[in-house]
Amino acid sequence: MIIGGSASQALASEVAKELNDKLCTVETRKFPDGERYFRIKDNIPCDEKVCVIQSTGYPQDENMMELFFILDTLSDMGVEEITVISPYLGYSRQERRFKDYECISAKATSRLIQSMNVKSLISVNLHEESICDLYDIPVYNLSAMPAIADYISKMGFDDKPVILAPDKGAQNFAKEIAEILDTDYDYLEKVRLSPEVVETKTKNISVDDRAVVIIDDIISTGGTIVNAIEILKNQGATSVNVFCVHPVLVNDAVLKINAAGADTLKATNTLNNEVAVISIAKTLADKIRQL
Amino acid sequence: MIIGGSASQALASEVAKELNDKLCTVETRKFPDGERYFRIKDNIPCDEKVCVIQSTGYPQDENMMELFFILDTLSDMGVEEITVISPYLGYSRQERRFKDYECISAKATSRLIQSMNVKSLISVNLHEESICDLYDIPVYNLSAMPAIADYISKMGFDDKPVILAPDKGAQNFAKEIAEILDTDYDYLEKVRLSPEVVETKTKNISVDDRAVVIIDDIISTGGTIVNAIEILKNQGATSVNVFCVHPVLVNDAVLKINAAGADTLKATNTLNNEVAVISIAKTLADKIRQL
Repeated sequence: MIIGGSASQALASEVAKELNDKLCTVETRKFPDGERYFRIKDNIPCDEKVCVIQSTGYPQDENMMELFFILDTLSDMGVEEITVISPYLGYSRQERRFKDYECISAKATSRLIQSMNVKSLISVNLHEESICDLYDIPVYNLSAMPAIADYISKMGFDDKPVILAPDKGAQNFAKEIAEILDTDYDYLEKVRLSPEVVETKTKNISVDDRAVVIIDDIISTGGTIVNAIEILKNQGATSVNVFCVHPVLVNDAVLKINAAGADTLKATNTLNNEVAVISIAKTLADKIRQL
Repeated sequence: MIIGGSASQALASEVAKELNDKLCTVETRKFPDGERYFRIKDNIPCDEKVCVIQSTGYPQDENMMELFFILDTLSDMGVEEITVISPYLGYSRQERRFKDYECISAKATSRLIQSMNVKSLISVNLHEESICDLYDIPVYNLSAMPAIADYISKMGFDDKPVILAPDKGAQNFAKEIAEILDTDYDYLEKVRLSPEVVETKTKNISVDDRAVVIIDDIISTGGTIVNAIEILKNQGATSVNVFCVHPVLVNDAVLKINAAGADTLKATNTLNNEVAVISIAKTLADKIRQL
């Protein structure tokens, strides 16, 4: 049985179709004072395995609270096998303490989720793998790279593109896609030429006269990507195609990236966004089958 | 030690002054993607008793999540004696199930709050007393009526006003204030005169040529109050003065109530609102001293 939260209604529907599973109907609305109402419309047998799909991106607090309300309702129904699928897991960026007495928000949310009788958690490309250690239940951190690689392979590039990470931290994503597409990969590196001058360039491969695919896990403000596009075009790239897993894309990031000359800007549907056209429904369904 | 959440900064400061207690400084802000950051700026000794003051009215989910983050941070610091003071406790209106498989949001939030190592909870005029039963920890449901009665006594009415509840459910509030002010009280009742005609009037007392004080726990849309004002003015009330504990007052409720002819509209500071001029700091401080 699949239950979709407000933030992942279409994705939950797709996953249910992939699995030929029942999609539970729910009722959600808000009272005039802003409080949310949640009801499950069908009975769910106690011994049913239930997957609750709810991304917890913006508005994070609302999506989190809705998730908790869904989980509490399932508990009341006596459902014991509950898996939470939060394809984009909010509050994953602060997973340790940088200053004394800071809130480790990823830990606080892990505590809240685990207070709700959850058996396991599935997410997609967690910003930090160490998030998994904050949970006592199994956490499955899936990769969206096969889904993204599949999308790229159908774009019909004349020659194989270079897969490029915008920084060293993201190079594993580039590697994973390059291996699937049987092409080469690299990352952008900052080189200090003098005390005043820093140049950003590809570490090993020339992009001159080649199509480039930029891949990152999250694009937030888009600043890094805008920078990368300008550099790559200057270095002779024939096209710059930008992909990410989680299209956080705050404010005018989509416009900024396109205005900077991106030939493509696409992402997966872990979050709702105009550019979220690559579905991870199959990736999720494959994992759910194994549970 | 007193910690104030974003929703109750001024109230927390007042309570700290009342108690001659330390007000802890905190850092709260939001990242560009909407995620909140929270840090306590001072060390708190493990054996310190800490009161966290945070109302959880609109935006309920944000205020709740901030409260959880504060509590998790205190846990990490090893603080064991934590009291949560949520003068307005969000999600207190659904404390039981009216339809199958509904979320009892008051219970879900009790579960979340209690997952955070809290020793006791203080609130003010909970909409339903039965909320207390949803907690395993002690819940102290304080009354703001003495604070409101004190405010009314200083308004300088020529003659003692009638204290009036807008419906039978609120008559205990009217009774409590009337006893403090040594005046009479009543409530408004709907009487069906014919199958088509319902008349609303005071149950026992004539308001003709008298000042009226309307008291309720929560004013939300203001519809009931607007109705009451019109009826009371028609029945000869010389003035209609509206008071409530929790000024939820959604949308244009303040304007509506004033336009209907309210001579006064004041509330306590359990929530931030222009009309929230009656402080419950002393009420809270008196209880904290007893803990």
